Amino acid sequence: MLNIDWKPQRNSSTALYRQIVDYIKEKIGNGEWTVGTRLPVQRELAKIFEVNRSTVIEALDELKADGLIEGRGKKGTVIINNTWSLMASTPAGNWEHYIKNGIQQPNLPTIQIINKLEYSDNIIRLGTGELSPELFPEEMMKNVFSTISNKIKSLGYERPKGLLYLREIISQHIKKFHINASPSSILIVSGSLQALQLISMSILKPGSTVLVEKPSYIKSLHVFESWGTKLKGISMDKDGVKLNEILKNLDNTTSLLYTIPTFNNPTGTIMSQDRRDDLLNLCTRERLPIIEDDAYRELWMEEIPPDTLKSRDKNGIVLYMNTLSKSLAPGMRIGWVIGPEAVIERLGDVKMQTDYGASSISQYAAAEWIKSGLYEAYLKKLRRKLKLRRDITIKILEKYFSDIALWNIPKGSFYIWMRLNSKINMTKLFYRCCKNGILINPGYMYDFNTNYNIRISYSYASIQDLQFGLKKLSDIIRNSHFDLE
Amino acid sequence: MLNIDWKPQRNSSTALYRQIVDYIKEKIGNGEWTVGTRLPVQRELAKIFEVNRSTVIEALDELKADGLIEGRGKKGTVIINNTWSLMASTPAGNWEHYIKNGIQQPNLPTIQIINKLEYSDNIIRLGTGELSPELFPEEMMKNVFSTISNKIKSLGYERPKGLLYLREIISQHIKKFHINASPSSILIVSGSLQALQLISMSILKPGSTVLVEKPSYIKSLHVFESWGTKLKGISMDKDGVKLNEILKNLDNTTSLLYTIPTFNNPTGTIMSQDRRDDLLNLCTRERLPIIEDDAYRELWMEEIPPDTLKSRDKNGIVLYMNTLSKSLAPGMRIGWVIGPEAVIERLGDVKMQTDYGASSISQYAAAEWIKSGLYEAYLKKLRRKLKLRRDITIKILEKYFSDIALWNIPKGSFYIWMRLNSKINMTKLFYRCCKNGILINPGYMYDFNTNYNIRISYSYASIQDLQFGLKKLSDIIRNSHFDLE
Repeated sequence: MLNIDWKPQRNSSTALYRQIVDYIKEKIGNGEWTVGTRLPVQRELAKIFEVNRSTVIEALDELKADGLIEGRGKKGTVIINNTWSLMASTPAGNWEHYIKNGIQQPNLPTIQIINKLEYSDNIIRLGTGELSPELFPEEMMKNVFSTISNKIKSLGYERPKGLLYLREIISQHIKKFHINASPSSILIVSGSLQALQLISMSILKPGSTVLVEKPSYIKSLHVFESWGTKLKGISMDKDGVKLNEILKNLDNTTSLLYTIPTFNNPTGTIMSQDRRDDLLNLCTRERLPIIEDDAYRELWMEEIPPDTLKSRDKNGIVLYMNTLSKSLAPGMRIGWVIGPEAVIERLGDVKMQTDYGASSISQYAAAEWIKSGLYEAYLKKLRRKLKLRRDITIKILEKYFSDIALWNIPKGSFYIWMRLNSKINMTKLFYRCCKNGILINPGYMYDFNTNYNIRISYSYASIQDLQFGLKKLSDIIRNSHFDLE
Repeated sequence: MLNIDWKPQRNSSTALYRQIVDYIKEKIGNGEWTVGTRLPVQRELAKIFEVNRSTVIEALDELKADGLIEGRGKKGTVIINNTWSLMASTPAGNWEHYIKNGIQQPNLPTIQIINKLEYSDNIIRLGTGELSPELFPEEMMKNVFSTISNKIKSLGYERPKGLLYLREIISQHIKKFHINASPSSILIVSGSLQALQLISMSILKPGSTVLVEKPSYIKSLHVFESWGTKLKGISMDKDGVKLNEILKNLDNTTSLLYTIPTFNNPTGTIMSQDRRDDLLNLCTRERLPIIEDDAYRELWMEEIPPDTLKSRDKNGIVLYMNTLSKSLAPGMRIGWVIGPEAVIERLGDVKMQTDYGASSISQYAAAEWIKSGLYEAYLKKLRRKLKLRRDITIKILEKYFSDIALWNIPKGSFYIWMRLNSKINMTKLFYRCCKNGILINPGYMYDFNTNYNIRISYSYASIQDLQFGLKKLSDIIRNSHFDLE
């Protein structure tokens, strides 16, 4: 898909169609749009350029006469030459088959669309797993910048495991969760997703299987699959992942269990303390290492969640992950992994080969946030604000959805896992919402089977947008009831 | 390798050996040191703990009696149990075979050692490819922090291609190099290494071949090889990579040419303008895409280098990479890739799956550096300072190496590519230097054949350290002349 963010100027002395011809020629001439690139259809181009369709046709006709493009009408227009290749015998710079190569799979279409639409104006984001800009602690961040600007004496490459100063602070910080780990057992990463990438690249054997909760946000990523690892979904009950299901699914390809015991994403399930202890026992006995993703722990609203798995792991079978992305700001790109030193060493070595470590500025900022106590103070306020948002959102759901859906009341984190009562086509619903300026995260992204859930997030959109957007969503579901089935 | 940064306290009422026992038990109990972990040998432990060897033996004896460790003497000691596994039948948490799995190869041993030793005290780093902390523009960075702290209103996830504001600024900035690219053809990455990783993961077919200059720093990384791609070295002359050698090595597995036309790392070679034009013609004709790594361009000392390949690429066959790591600060972790939109889209999609983008703080800081004009002002000063360092280093070499080595005088960048006159064992030389507190980057890291070069960097060590370290290096080479052959 081309991103065209340009429009011809109406007050220019150059004709609109001529400006369009020049713009497209420049794009082709610079090599930005290569031979083989498909232009949007005429109707679309007219909309993008804010001109009549006849103006578009006039421009395309000229480019066609110049031998630069080919085709017209519904199938769209393709660039067949550039000024250089008009002289040469065969066109160069055709990257098409390159783009189809490569180990890493493309994102799911739904996710690609979400990634793009998130930055459109006037879209209401009902599913975004991120704190609202309204909740950003601007003044505290200013304090942090001011402190670190006096602290930073240079910004070189950091050690393979990350800035020692930050690791020392995290080593203290995690005592709060009853985790004992020295700085040498801690790896700083650029967020949890990178931690998973590193684990995939470094310690998983192609052909192995990773057990994950069903549903789990990990299903929406290709972070394991791109490396030749398969995911197997394990069902949950109200206390978390089912242990007998784990046992049933163990075979000699099983390499890891990935779990979000505290506020599973998307369901919000909290694993009970008993289940945690039993899970640890089972995994120790079966020698099944665990990845514990603890990204949402700090976002409790009613009571402190049960202890981390890591805090009770005396055998080093747990790789523990945490991040500032959900509780503070994703733009920091700072997370950490805690585990046996030998594993952390290996992950650190691979991280050095991947991107030479996380941003030092972000690492200093993260250290300052935690050390100064600002992070704790901020979290206290944040929990209250999130609770308020949750309560309002539940009220809105009660008003517009009580006859068409069911949902849980989460005790923390961002999400309400809402199940529609009727079996409608969820993909069609997603696209219809997009057209109506509403972005939802359909449950099928996270599940192994068809489902009729929507992950509603109360963390991102403004209250006003939640109000308006959820009402609209309810209308769309009601009005489209028949043709979406 | 375990990192032990702890020592028993001499003024404690607890005996030294007892403190050591408790320390090791805690490490084992926390699962930081898992079953199977090898402890350093006694002599080494005595050194680390700053105690007599008899104290170490006493501690190890007790741990052995407890059934926690096994073996002694030269082969070292292995953890065979933890308190938990003493009760269980088989030890869990044995990650050993996991660490050996995974697609990504470990770093070369020489590089692993360099990555570690760089953070030892009292080591003189004669090969480090990084600006000295002395050259860090502390005051300017303070200005930048102060500006961005007022500008940042939130720090959410950024778009797949990176912060639009930064891409707009880069789109203007690169006009200086005669490159025309709109923000949609620019991808922000966390440094050049990540750009290469993304290219490897996204657009290279396993089994394909990448042509690279011989020697090239890329040979020291596994960024292409870990993905099943082979490197083929193409020799250079004084004008850059040899075109007839490219032709000779083309076959149907060839996928890309990777080149550093401006200040090749490690040789410093600048590709002439004629060679650049001929190379572009050849690659266009042969439809061989080029990765142009331009990391060192701004570090010229005598005259502005020839135009970038990208600026003359009218067919979109060049993927252009640049970074702030070499010219400003690696800790920023900010670089960019410019190429055909379709390729940039694909790389951006994969980046979103890898780490959700570069640090937003770093992106704002980079934008501010460039936009404010501080970057240009700083570069002017930096060039003068680097030239001074180069001139002094050449003087030192003339004093201590004129009879045992040959070298070029680089016109920019960080490196002097020094060839020893006699054929000594370079690996042994590397280790001997390490023992003597000197870190060198031996040429074999960068080459496809044996060579007798050392990459001397005048950018990092202080002048005093350069003076002392280079004299020492000369002594080591002279004194070890016979047994290193």
